[in-house]
Amino acid sequence: MAELVVIYKTPNDPAAFDKYYAATHIPLAKKLPGLKKYQVSNGGVAGPGGPSGVHLVATLTFESAAAIEAAFASPEGQAAAGDLPNFATGGADIVFFDTRDV
Amino acid sequence: MAELVVIYKTPNDPAAFDKYYAATHIPLAKKLPGLKKYQVSNGGVAGPGGPSGVHLVATLTFESAAAIEAAFASPEGQAAAGDLPNFATGGADIVFFDTRDV
Repeated sequence: MAELVVIYKTPNDPAAFDKYYAATHIPLAKKLPGLKKYQVSNGGVAGPGGPSGVHLVATLTFESAAAIEAAFASPEGQAAAGDLPNFATGGADIVFFDTRDV
Repeated sequence: MAELVVIYKTPNDPAAFDKYYAATHIPLAKKLPGLKKYQVSNGGVAGPGGPSGVHLVATLTFESAAAIEAAFASPEGQAAAGDLPNFATGGADIVFFDTRDV
């Protein structure tokens, strides 16, 4: 399997972020071709020493990193990625990778 | 459920990192009390535009964020966290959070 992890830094207006994310971005991201599971952080995101500066973490599961690349290249992927500037005012780190259990 | 995500930036010596991580750090991290699942990136970690500057992503699953806090506070958690300077020469971002499916 493979994971797409999106780490949203604290935005200018967290309440507006949450509202937009739930009402607009989740429905867009759910259209990604090949999406198998979609998880978000529930409540605060902490670091080992306390606050992390991260507002939300989204983890989207696909069959493979190749499937994630294909999802990015699709019209649905371009729509979801193109939506980020509409709410991710704190910026976002995005990584994806195949996974294995250890 | 809850996730502890560790994002290791590209270290000075990736081959040495990989060897140490497999031989020493994984066995230490597996001792964390309450650990339910332990996944790592398999192969490269990409970003939407290509290389990400990230070498490895580890995702450790626990029952709750409170369980992750307890794991950090345990002797096993202190040993695992204290091991990071031995190999994570590129630095690491660490976040943890409760999760929900969307």
